[in-house]
Amino acid sequence: MVKPEGDVEPIETLIRQFARLPGIGLKTASRLVYHLLQTERSQMKELAGALLAVADKVRLCSICFMPTQNDPCKYCSDPKRDDNLICVVERPQDLIAIEKSGEFRGRYHILHGKIAPLSGIGPDDLKISELLRRLEGGDIAEVIIATNPNGEGEATAIYLSKLIKPLDIKVTRIASGIPMGGELEYIDKVTLARALSARREL
Amino acid sequence: MVKPEGDVEPIETLIRQFARLPGIGLKTASRLVYHLLQTERSQMKELAGALLAVADKVRLCSICFMPTQNDPCKYCSDPKRDDNLICVVERPQDLIAIEKSGEFRGRYHILHGKIAPLSGIGPDDLKISELLRRLEGGDIAEVIIATNPNGEGEATAIYLSKLIKPLDIKVTRIASGIPMGGELEYIDKVTLARALSARREL
Repeated sequence: MVKPEGDVEPIETLIRQFARLPGIGLKTASRLVYHLLQTERSQMKELAGALLAVADKVRLCSICFMPTQNDPCKYCSDPKRDDNLICVVERPQDLIAIEKSGEFRGRYHILHGKIAPLSGIGPDDLKISELLRRLEGGDIAEVIIATNPNGEGEATAIYLSKLIKPLDIKVTRIASGIPMGGELEYIDKVTLARALSARREL
Repeated sequence: MVKPEGDVEPIETLIRQFARLPGIGLKTASRLVYHLLQTERSQMKELAGALLAVADKVRLCSICFMPTQNDPCKYCSDPKRDDNLICVVERPQDLIAIEKSGEFRGRYHILHGKIAPLSGIGPDDLKISELLRRLEGGDIAEVIIATNPNGEGEATAIYLSKLIKPLDIKVTRIASGIPMGGELEYIDKVTLARALSARREL
């Protein structure tokens, strides 16, 4: 793209900053910056302000590790939620997705990743010891493991269940199967096999 | 995505700001923000700083209308460029693309758009009167119209040539045809027809 020389420098710097974001290459970054240059200057300032607000104010909740402005976060401090139930997810986005389903009113725990030996991510890189400390401290009846249903997510779920079961806490796993609205004809065979083996009596 | 309530607000605000950018919906914006939350806080601050630098320092060059930190811009103030030749482009990105080709050492003029009646963009919305003023004032031998070779770009080129020719200035149009490395078999028929009618003797 633009060479970092002379008077194009602030533009070039901004392009390079955008290009650090995932899924945004130099071409897209350049398009974004030239788009912003066509808009009111206030739009760039508002985006900058929003970034600084997040950078300054948002930290991880000390209980569940959700990014939050207040510690503990609104999920941990809500008196109406069920303290006996903890749902373990990989990432903050997963918590948001579960909240949107409206099906869960317990507490959360965010691992901030999954065990992925090929990427060099082991149990110590995740918030697993923090989870165990919560479980030992509190009166928890059930831990729902809601890591993603893929190889690494499954392995993480199995690893966690082996750690949690000795604490005499029920460990469950979210169901995987054919998505609602999906069609058997188009579903992959691994999902279909799982849906069959996990069939339930009607 | 996230509801704008309670302590998620800075995150929600940032997601909405990202989602104002072209090609970035709420899902992508959310992904970007949660990615940034996983990185060092310095990355958000650097992006914010780069945005503010552009917002504060970059203006349009008063001669060619390229976004620039210094007015006139480096293309207009470079004493080694040919003053007799002006290349007219739609957008700043087009100038950058031509510069990268290394084929042009004249001056530029950026229209900031093209005539697009269906989008309500007429000649008065572009930097056309500014171009005519430049042409009347200077000793210009040739104007190369490098608007994009599509309906609106072509119409803009024809409109400009009708305005410029009476000033006794040569008006040329960049060639369109089969791109280098392209194959006739896969080229669209309009481009192929153009390549045939614009054939040159060898």
